[in-house]
Amino acid sequence: MKEDKILLGHGAGGKLSCDLVKEVFLPFLDNEILGSLDDSAVIRTEGSKVAFTTDSYVVKPLFFPGGDIGRLSICGTVNDLAMVGARPVGISTSFILEEGFAIEDLETVLSSIDKASLEAGVNVVAGDTKVVEHGAAQGLFITTSGVGIVPGGVDISGSHAMPGDVVIINGPIGDHEIGILLARGEFSLKGEIKSDCAPLNGLVHAMLDACNNGIHALRDPTRGGLATVLWEIANASGVGIIVDEERIRVREEVRGVCDLLGFDPYYLANEGKLVAFAPQDKAEGVLEAMKRDPLGRESAIIGNVVDKNQGKVILKTRIKGHRLLEPLSGEQFPRIC
Amino acid sequence: MKEDKILLGHGAGGKLSCDLVKEVFLPFLDNEILGSLDDSAVIRTEGSKVAFTTDSYVVKPLFFPGGDIGRLSICGTVNDLAMVGARPVGISTSFILEEGFAIEDLETVLSSIDKASLEAGVNVVAGDTKVVEHGAAQGLFITTSGVGIVPGGVDISGSHAMPGDVVIINGPIGDHEIGILLARGEFSLKGEIKSDCAPLNGLVHAMLDACNNGIHALRDPTRGGLATVLWEIANASGVGIIVDEERIRVREEVRGVCDLLGFDPYYLANEGKLVAFAPQDKAEGVLEAMKRDPLGRESAIIGNVVDKNQGKVILKTRIKGHRLLEPLSGEQFPRIC
Repeated sequence: MKEDKILLGHGAGGKLSCDLVKEVFLPFLDNEILGSLDDSAVIRTEGSKVAFTTDSYVVKPLFFPGGDIGRLSICGTVNDLAMVGARPVGISTSFILEEGFAIEDLETVLSSIDKASLEAGVNVVAGDTKVVEHGAAQGLFITTSGVGIVPGGVDISGSHAMPGDVVIINGPIGDHEIGILLARGEFSLKGEIKSDCAPLNGLVHAMLDACNNGIHALRDPTRGGLATVLWEIANASGVGIIVDEERIRVREEVRGVCDLLGFDPYYLANEGKLVAFAPQDKAEGVLEAMKRDPLGRESAIIGNVVDKNQGKVILKTRIKGHRLLEPLSGEQFPRIC
Repeated sequence: MKEDKILLGHGAGGKLSCDLVKEVFLPFLDNEILGSLDDSAVIRTEGSKVAFTTDSYVVKPLFFPGGDIGRLSICGTVNDLAMVGARPVGISTSFILEEGFAIEDLETVLSSIDKASLEAGVNVVAGDTKVVEHGAAQGLFITTSGVGIVPGGVDISGSHAMPGDVVIINGPIGDHEIGILLARGEFSLKGEIKSDCAPLNGLVHAMLDACNNGIHALRDPTRGGLATVLWEIANASGVGIIVDEERIRVREEVRGVCDLLGFDPYYLANEGKLVAFAPQDKAEGVLEAMKRDPLGRESAIIGNVVDKNQGKVILKTRIKGHRLLEPLSGEQFPRIC
């Protein structure tokens, strides 16, 4: 049943978000490019394929271990471009600032944006600033958009996973979301977990080079986590996905917090992770290339794609059982990204 | 002196906004493209010139005579692309929604976005939705970005106005800002003034066709109004600009509100107006083409560019006097766009 008011869960990146897009947005705005629902739109124009993406950042707190809203806003957009194989050529940042926001904090955020752009090898080429009354914007919201060029021969989409593909991830899951939760100080837990927030475009290009652009699908498991992203790809591609619990790493500290608070790591947001779908015969080459990159050292093959159980994601558990991974429905957690 | 906190005036589009960009943003993010401070960035890439722009919309009220936040967000971005002569190829919309926002209102906004996109001949190809707690986003903020292609032979920039150019505007000024002010109901004034909110890309392309791409500079006088935009171009191009009060139309109803409340129409925001700088010998052809377009029927030549008084804008007044038009400093008005 369609809701008549916006709920917090509509922004959580799971089933409710998906329903909002499909039932409210697409009836008005549908077109072939938007309807693909990939991380970036790919526009075919005079001789080149232009990738284009946007995301708003409303993270609380603005500053956290491993990053801040500025770093996050650049990495998130660079990563969405990278998920269709695009090389970023320009980023825009639009700031909605609250009256009274400290210029010093703004400078810290700008410095992070500068640093993250440098890491990603892209410039901020356009921007806007609006100011709203005190109390109307949690201090600062940033919306970044990105433009990239998809190199010839690259054809990556969430709908291109194929039976026989292996599923690869570049490291342990959940660091970002648990890092933010702890930074909020709402739980009296000791310790600090760093967000994994990082630009993945360099890693993606190393992967593409290692397999002659043979990657079928890529997605970064942000809101909704690994489970939701795998479910999206299983559905968009019309395939089944089987992943192996034993191969999916979760840091001990992250698992500890999950156990204490009753969270499921498969639904935790990440900001420096990607899931790749590559044909079996190219998987080893891709994996080796990933391990040579600082952001891919802990990469592992975590599963494979099959032609049965279409639209379903099955987790083989440690105790040799099977668990169906459904998409996040509504909100598992406090909204953090 | 640099402020240490964000003020409402930092978002008003005048001198304070300019200082914020130059003193706080550019020291961290400067590069040749961003530094041009045109309405859209122009990125040169493999064979084509890609235009790219972004703007956040925080207008209150969300619905007003002549439009709503949805229509505004599409027109604003299409117009920023048009101001470098680009043909739009894709728009992104990013929504920051408050918990509790009525889905029905969201659908009204989406329907306006759909309609405005159709008028402009461009699709929304990418999007994002975030939800924040009740009270944290004035109901709804929208950030739109746009990508366009600049046709070969077109080279328009706020820094390209030249002595000998004439200055053309496509109609009366101030409708948008006064329309929004009245819609707020803060003043007990009767009557309704419609925002001029409209996509100007069709008009711009007719103008370019009429003069073999000979337009030097274009800008839409949004925040900060006509005076601020002329000042920006006088400075970016290193020229003087003389405009004639008698030729700049202000609707009687708009002038009436200005007189009552003490506002200066030259600083009022517009959302369906453009100022064009074209060489004298092409001006008549451009003007005729403009008058054939529904959005250009009231076009007029309002002034010319000279090589003295560099960086200054001089208004010849009705009583044969001269008045220096300075950029808006801080806020003249309640913030409306």
